[in-house]
Amino acid sequence: MRTLVPFGARDPKTRLDAVLDADERRAFAEAMLEDVLGVLTDHDPVVLANAPVDVDAPVTVDERPLTEAVNAELAIESPTAVVMADLPLLDSDAVAELFAPDADLVVAPGLGGGTNALVVRDPEFRVDYHGVSVRDHRQSARASDTSLATVDSFRLAMDIDEPSDLVEVLLHADGAAADWLRAHGGRATTADGRVQFNREDPG
Amino acid sequence: MRTLVPFGARDPKTRLDAVLDADERRAFAEAMLEDVLGVLTDHDPVVLANAPVDVDAPVTVDERPLTEAVNAELAIESPTAVVMADLPLLDSDAVAELFAPDADLVVAPGLGGGTNALVVRDPEFRVDYHGVSVRDHRQSARASDTSLATVDSFRLAMDIDEPSDLVEVLLHADGAAADWLRAHGGRATTADGRVQFNREDPG
Repeated sequence: MRTLVPFGARDPKTRLDAVLDADERRAFAEAMLEDVLGVLTDHDPVVLANAPVDVDAPVTVDERPLTEAVNAELAIESPTAVVMADLPLLDSDAVAELFAPDADLVVAPGLGGGTNALVVRDPEFRVDYHGVSVRDHRQSARASDTSLATVDSFRLAMDIDEPSDLVEVLLHADGAAADWLRAHGGRATTADGRVQFNREDPG
Repeated sequence: MRTLVPFGARDPKTRLDAVLDADERRAFAEAMLEDVLGVLTDHDPVVLANAPVDVDAPVTVDERPLTEAVNAELAIESPTAVVMADLPLLDSDAVAELFAPDADLVVAPGLGGGTNALVVRDPEFRVDYHGVSVRDHRQSARASDTSLATVDSFRLAMDIDEPSDLVEVLLHADGAAADWLRAHGGRATTADGRVQFNREDPG
């Protein structure tokens, strides 16, 4: 099955700007993309980017917003999977969980109401990433009697947007994104009983 | 297998005080405990509380800090599981995943470096919930050649500490905690593209 990997190539991961500058955010976003593509090799990954990006996978450039770009691809080919590019905890077991259910729509919720991955076997289904997308995608499936399965995976749920999310990369990932963070001084430290992301001079 | 469910009965969930007052936090914490006990019925749950609590399960009261109280119980009986009381997304499938691996130590990571659940079959293993406990528990297992399995579950990873965590309860839980939140005006709303927890007058 073809798997779309949407990638925001223009000024990516702006909510990380308290800890990473623009060039670092771009490099880190590309490291996460590399990790995701690495665990999707058996699932025909195609990067769907809003600007050219140099990666070891086919790239489709579509400048439209995420929802419109994904829906244009869903209209062309079915079945199709969609896996976000900012899931550096993803491993082959979690990918297998995503593709295992024999349902017309398989949803992997993201932290905070997002939809981090979908397997779309219903050719009529369309995405809407605005708002509480996981709720909307489930409601859309129920409204059209599309069979629905939900995947319970922390590795699929954990998209990286905020500085505090970087702690999860350091603790649970072992690919390019984790290597990049460690090489750039990323450390998980504790203060007041809570774990925080900090940067040290890598020396 | 006996399953300890640690419950902080004194002024629970203080980090929710921006959205719930002290009585509400207590009621919500007890609703989460009820949900967790409800999915553990086949696993001999015992509430390990630091003050008396009225629930439909055996209760052991131990006023010591969490780590010391759990370790005292681990020294008495092996194997023993430990499942935190603030996991209202937990369902029977996630519980089955926790108990499935045939390892001396099974770890379910929590968001932010915590350890939300453990299955401890090594009678020598002791917990340490301070700091980045999931890292420490894994290192402890490796240092003693204890076989280790890690469970990948969003439902096990999602402990409820902060107001933003309440969104996950509204979106993904359907037990007493979700009912309580909805009855008390809890709503998942979107602002600036991010999902937030808000309260409305339940009318």
